[in-house]
Amino acid sequence: MQLPAPISVEWIAKYLHGEIIGNAHQQANGINEIHQVRHGDITFVDHEKYYKTALQSAATVVLINQRLSAPAGKTLILVDDPFRAYNQLVRHFHPFSFPETSLAQSIQVGEGTRIAPEVVIGEHVQIGKDCLIYPHVTIYDHCIIGDRVIIHSGTVIGADAFYYKKRTGEVWQYEKMISCGRVVIENDVEVGANCTIDKGVSGDTLIGAGTKIDNLVHVGHDTRIGKGCLIAAQVGIAGTVIIEDHVTLWGQVGVSKDLTIGREAVVLAQSGVPSSLKGGQIYFGYPAEEARYKRREIAWIKRIPEIWEKVKHL
Amino acid sequence: MQLPAPISVEWIAKYLHGEIIGNAHQQANGINEIHQVRHGDITFVDHEKYYKTALQSAATVVLINQRLSAPAGKTLILVDDPFRAYNQLVRHFHPFSFPETSLAQSIQVGEGTRIAPEVVIGEHVQIGKDCLIYPHVTIYDHCIIGDRVIIHSGTVIGADAFYYKKRTGEVWQYEKMISCGRVVIENDVEVGANCTIDKGVSGDTLIGAGTKIDNLVHVGHDTRIGKGCLIAAQVGIAGTVIIEDHVTLWGQVGVSKDLTIGREAVVLAQSGVPSSLKGGQIYFGYPAEEARYKRREIAWIKRIPEIWEKVKHL
Amino acid sequence: MQLPAPISVEWIAKYLHGEIIGNAHQQANGINEIHQVRHGDITFVDHEKYYKTALQSAATVVLINQRLSAPAGKTLILVDDPFRAYNQLVRHFHPFSFPETSLAQSIQVGEGTRIAPEVVIGEHVQIGKDCLIYPHVTIYDHCIIGDRVIIHSGTVIGADAFYYKKRTGEVWQYEKMISCGRVVIENDVEVGANCTIDKGVSGDTLIGAGTKIDNLVHVGHDTRIGKGCLIAAQVGIAGTVIIEDHVTLWGQVGVSKDLTIGREAVVLAQSGVPSSLKGGQIYFGYPAEEARYKRREIAWIKRIPEIWEKVKHL
Repeated sequence: MQLPAPISVEWIAKYLHGEIIGNAHQQANGINEIHQVRHGDITFVDHEKYYKTALQSAATVVLINQRLSAPAGKTLILVDDPFRAYNQLVRHFHPFSFPETSLAQSIQVGEGTRIAPEVVIGEHVQIGKDCLIYPHVTIYDHCIIGDRVIIHSGTVIGADAFYYKKRTGEVWQYEKMISCGRVVIENDVEVGANCTIDKGVSGDTLIGAGTKIDNLVHVGHDTRIGKGCLIAAQVGIAGTVIIEDHVTLWGQVGVSKDLTIGREAVVLAQSGVPSSLKGGQIYFGYPAEEARYKRREIAWIKRIPEIWEKVKHL
Repeated sequence: MQLPAPISVEWIAKYLHGEIIGNAHQQANGINEIHQVRHGDITFVDHEKYYKTALQSAATVVLINQRLSAPAGKTLILVDDPFRAYNQLVRHFHPFSFPETSLAQSIQVGEGTRIAPEVVIGEHVQIGKDCLIYPHVTIYDHCIIGDRVIIHSGTVIGADAFYYKKRTGEVWQYEKMISCGRVVIENDVEVGANCTIDKGVSGDTLIGAGTKIDNLVHVGHDTRIGKGCLIAAQVGIAGTVIIEDHVTLWGQVGVSKDLTIGREAVVLAQSGVPSSLKGGQIYFGYPAEEARYKRREIAWIKRIPEIWEKVKHL
Repeated sequence: MQLPAPISVEWIAKYLHGEIIGNAHQQANGINEIHQVRHGDITFVDHEKYYKTALQSAATVVLINQRLSAPAGKTLILVDDPFRAYNQLVRHFHPFSFPETSLAQSIQVGEGTRIAPEVVIGEHVQIGKDCLIYPHVTIYDHCIIGDRVIIHSGTVIGADAFYYKKRTGEVWQYEKMISCGRVVIENDVEVGANCTIDKGVSGDTLIGAGTKIDNLVHVGHDTRIGKGCLIAAQVGIAGTVIIEDHVTLWGQVGVSKDLTIGREAVVLAQSGVPSSLKGGQIYFGYPAEEARYKRREIAWIKRIPEIWEKVKHL
């Protein structure tokens, strides 16, 4: 998320009751969690295991719960609970928005766009020209829809990320990371019925131009789908995935988080993708491998009894 | 389902045109199908195969289609079609409720709870304090929602159980079991978008406190999910499952009916769970096994060609 | 799709700026893509690979982009872009319909049918007697619902087929095939919550009498499900599938396009069906095979280490 204007680390430290380590005259331009962080951003880290990652990241300001020395060009702000401090900062600059009317007053809708009855659109949503938004679609606040986009009934654009911090005290608790990102849908996208495309935690979930999505598809937070992709029914894509241009995912494919599927890759139905895949190949199975190898593997499995016959007397 | 007051077996037998076998002065306090039955309840049995189970169950009153002798402390009511008689009784004490307005007059909503436009809530629903009910959520009659619960757009709470009796006459017919149970969602639960959580057939479908559910998740009738669980997107859980506390189910996992997943178990993405799993372990694959064994199995499969090379000349 | 009256090929050729090859006095009664085409129909073909199929099909009129000689009894209409010409013709005879009100004026609803608040029903929909249509259901234009049908909340009947023509020019583009078919749901069907049943591209998607469908199920365009089937939660069925009577598909099963599942087949949970299955058997796994063989296969896999022990010193 971009901040509305540069904010001084002094203000931030004061607001969070934190202590500045390093350059006290720094300014921040955005807030982003570690996967999305860019130069100028505030991020947070609260676990020893990730201190190094955070300190070596592009972040300019790091909310942290241990007194470490600030790397050159970075400012640390020491707080008791960096996760909570981060959430507090997000909420300050991105006030909570809950739909009070079906169509919020602040929405912008392009010429030729038709919005069916029983659609709900939150604050600050922008919709381009010549779109069709079918009944019972919900678009949460701040999402951006391009031109000639079709969204079928029951689809939910921009619900919160499934992103919690586990606190294992007396009872386990999952504390919610506040989502301040958006969903951005580019031109000529069609989204089927009853899909769910979650907003980014701090950045954007992106559906590239000309991509077509079938029914009951889930797209997680901060995932970026390229241009001209085909996503068949009931596919599930976790958070912070990159799907490059012209990728095809057939029905019920599952894609794990934090990985990349390369340009023009095809993943056959029901496959599971636990790690990155190179482009230009056809994949199949769990874990998804090149389909020709996987088919051979299935054939080999069927030959185990034959092998057994050969070796059983050994 | 609890009855509004104790009901005499004489009244029940008369209402159903049935014949009392055993104690004619018994009273019933509830109606429950065999999986949920407790002392004081009416249940039914209509297949020889299950007579023994029903007669040895906790039920106090059993609707049955064969003249057996009543075990001590139980009353049998002989009827032609126990399934239909049971349904008839359920409907008498749980009159059919269909939403006539978006928000039924009888609903109770706690302070601080916000209900978005285009939400439909049925009769006798109770919602606690400080909840967020997003657009296009449907809550069927009699469901109970705790405090600080968040339900995202398009989610359906309390639709009927998928539970039919097959009648194989000239044509097969599936006769519907009438659902008289509820969905009970405890405090601090978050349910994602476009989920479906079915009501119990006769008892409650339960989502324990602090559990977080992602998008497009299905939870079947009478299933009880513990506290502090994480259920990722597109997971499907059948009916009458017990998920203990702090269980994690990753994306697209499927769980069969009538089983238990133990405390703190983790089931990895796309796994299928056909039978009960002990707590505290990480599971994977179909049928779900401990992940470390399953991973070895995948490695072994890849070695079949190597084995073949060794034995092909034998 | 049936045409409102027989249309002369002369009119069609003129409308499409095409050239008639063969009988110029032919008339057409319907428009159908190649999978659904019947005698009297117009269809199209635009790829050399399929010329033969189209010319040997039941079609009476074929829109084509190559000057071939017309087989006996057929008329070819030569156009630059048969796909686009076909779409143009479909749109002419099946004008685009977008919901402007929750309940279109042209809908017909039988006696005893109850329609909940927040339901949206498109133009020319027919609903039979004694149905229950729960909140947030969307029924797109022209769909036909029988008697005593129950449709639970959030289900979408009749959204467009997921059917595009890929054009690989400078950038890939997916051009949408216009769906002019319908969904036809016969008597006594129950459809769970948040399902999606797509309309036919040119014919009907059919749900046979007495079939029961659980939640979050996807049924693709032009698929025909028989009578008395059971389809459990999160099943996905692609387009142009035939499911015969009394088939049972358990949870999360996936069915590929253009295949047939025979009468009384049972497909166990999470299985994938890539090709046709004979009736009367129980199937399991991916690719779905008879369950007893698949279970043996799973057992064989577990014996690979034992085999290795026997051969490792060879």
